[in-house]
Amino acid sequence: MVTTADAQTVTPFLWQVRIYYEDTDSGGVVYHANYLKYMERARTEFLRSLGIELDRTAQEHGAVFAVRAVQLDFLRPALLNDQLNVSVEIRKLGRASVDFRQEISRLDSALVLCAATVKIACIDQGNWRPRPLPENIKREITRVSSV
Amino acid sequence: MVTTADAQTVTPFLWQVRIYYEDTDSGGVVYHANYLKYMERARTEFLRSLGIELDRTAQEHGAVFAVRAVQLDFLRPALLNDQLNVSVEIRKLGRASVDFRQEISRLDSALVLCAATVKIACIDQGNWRPRPLPENIKREITRVSSV
Amino acid sequence: MVTTADAQTVTPFLWQVRIYYEDTDSGGVVYHANYLKYMERARTEFLRSLGIELDRTAQEHGAVFAVRAVQLDFLRPALLNDQLNVSVEIRKLGRASVDFRQEISRLDSALVLCAATVKIACIDQGNWRPRPLPENIKREITRVSSV
Amino acid sequence: MVTTADAQTVTPFLWQVRIYYEDTDSGGVVYHANYLKYMERARTEFLRSLGIELDRTAQEHGAVFAVRAVQLDFLRPALLNDQLNVSVEIRKLGRASVDFRQEISRLDSALVLCAATVKIACIDQGNWRPRPLPENIKREITRVSSV
Repeated sequence: MVTTADAQTVTPFLWQVRIYYEDTDSGGVVYHANYLKYMERARTEFLRSLGIELDRTAQEHGAVFAVRAVQLDFLRPALLNDQLNVSVEIRKLGRASVDFRQEISRLDSALVLCAATVKIACIDQGNWRPRPLPENIKREITRVSSV
Repeated sequence: MVTTADAQTVTPFLWQVRIYYEDTDSGGVVYHANYLKYMERARTEFLRSLGIELDRTAQEHGAVFAVRAVQLDFLRPALLNDQLNVSVEIRKLGRASVDFRQEISRLDSALVLCAATVKIACIDQGNWRPRPLPENIKREITRVSSV
Repeated sequence: MVTTADAQTVTPFLWQVRIYYEDTDSGGVVYHANYLKYMERARTEFLRSLGIELDRTAQEHGAVFAVRAVQLDFLRPALLNDQLNVSVEIRKLGRASVDFRQEISRLDSALVLCAATVKIACIDQGNWRPRPLPENIKREITRVSSV
Repeated sequence: MVTTADAQTVTPFLWQVRIYYEDTDSGGVVYHANYLKYMERARTEFLRSLGIELDRTAQEHGAVFAVRAVQLDFLRPALLNDQLNVSVEIRKLGRASVDFRQEISRLDSALVLCAATVKIACIDQGNWRPRPLPENIKREITRVSSV
């Protein structure tokens, strides 16, 4: 996550995922729903890279994150043994939600296999109602993104 | 699946899904990616109700179906032991693709927990390229839907 | 499951499971870990058939069930679209645990695809320590089995 | 995997696994069937560390590996965000099968959470029949283990 001088270009956070048998289906490719798991792993590691741990956020703030909406395009199939790069970019930082752009490609190729926009809502652990993002999370996300 | 006299209202196909521990996560609710599984189960059973079996379609026509795009809204969480209704409606029948509208709710409630539009592409088993839908599938889908 | 002299034959509880793409892997067969899911579905439905709901048991008694040990033999592969029968038999009823014998076969065949013994422990929701089985569960299991 | 001078002590291969929401269930712990996935990830990476790739083995030798039997003890629960060590040790090298011993613990603790013996059979991709292990795999496994 590097911000250049003119404060516009932000290198997306990248997280690697290896494909095992558990990830594939009998069509010989990665089962479509599993891409959502890889995207969540990458978002979790993005937050971890900012010092934000989801279990601690729940304990300290009573705040948990729920996926509220997803738009997914499955462009090309990933295969057994593939090593994938999953990107994380912030598109919009709301009062109680964050919009991410995420893309999945192979380590050795720029071709996008799967692309998504993901809206995450911050909700109250007790009653599942929207609540403002904890301040430290807001601050850290603002610090590393251009939104 | 009944078409009324004026050929517009089509009752959606419904498929029931029971929620077990395997479906939930430590947030206490159904893990978000799993809704895609329930929607695929329902689409498969919808096709089965029309006499269309996916393994036979692959063997006879070399045609398989791949999820090409999904828009998902997660509105309310489903819980352990819930019995869900998953609906299947055809929105658009293309030359090589089918657009579905699907909604998930509890058996005893009209509240929608999760709603999606799902674009399925018919592809060639060998080269993963788009190919026209087999005629029998097109005919059966046309027969039971108003598209 | 023992038949006594006076012909109190106990038929094992059976639960049907359909195989979808989500269940298979790129080897073309059901992914091995998934059989554990089908066995849990069947045990849950077995208990449900006795009027025992796991969420209610947790709320009323603070008791949850955890899989403590499993022995699994994978004898023949299950395939996409297969309709499976999953059996549930009680082998042993302990103070704080239940031993099950479970077998999986196709609806139209006696050939066993996967066989298991599963030890379930009753534990305290709060501290994850063993605790005696709730009396109503013990009574119901005793009623329908010969252990 | 280092063999000491007197060729008896073999350090087991270790593979790290991070626990995400996808891995947990509403009991608040890792879902029991998922430990089998982590064990397979570790076996795959153990073979990869020896230069053995499962997809190449299938293409070149027509040989695939199937889990034939598993004995699993679930001793303590793993939790969200845990970083686990999964060990891989060879217990027995047969003509057409390999027996593994595998244990899962947290990175910062010697307490075993889950322990297993896993029998893997080498089978013919075409007919799912047992076949001798490819020579290069046998040689590599012998080289790094004391069996």
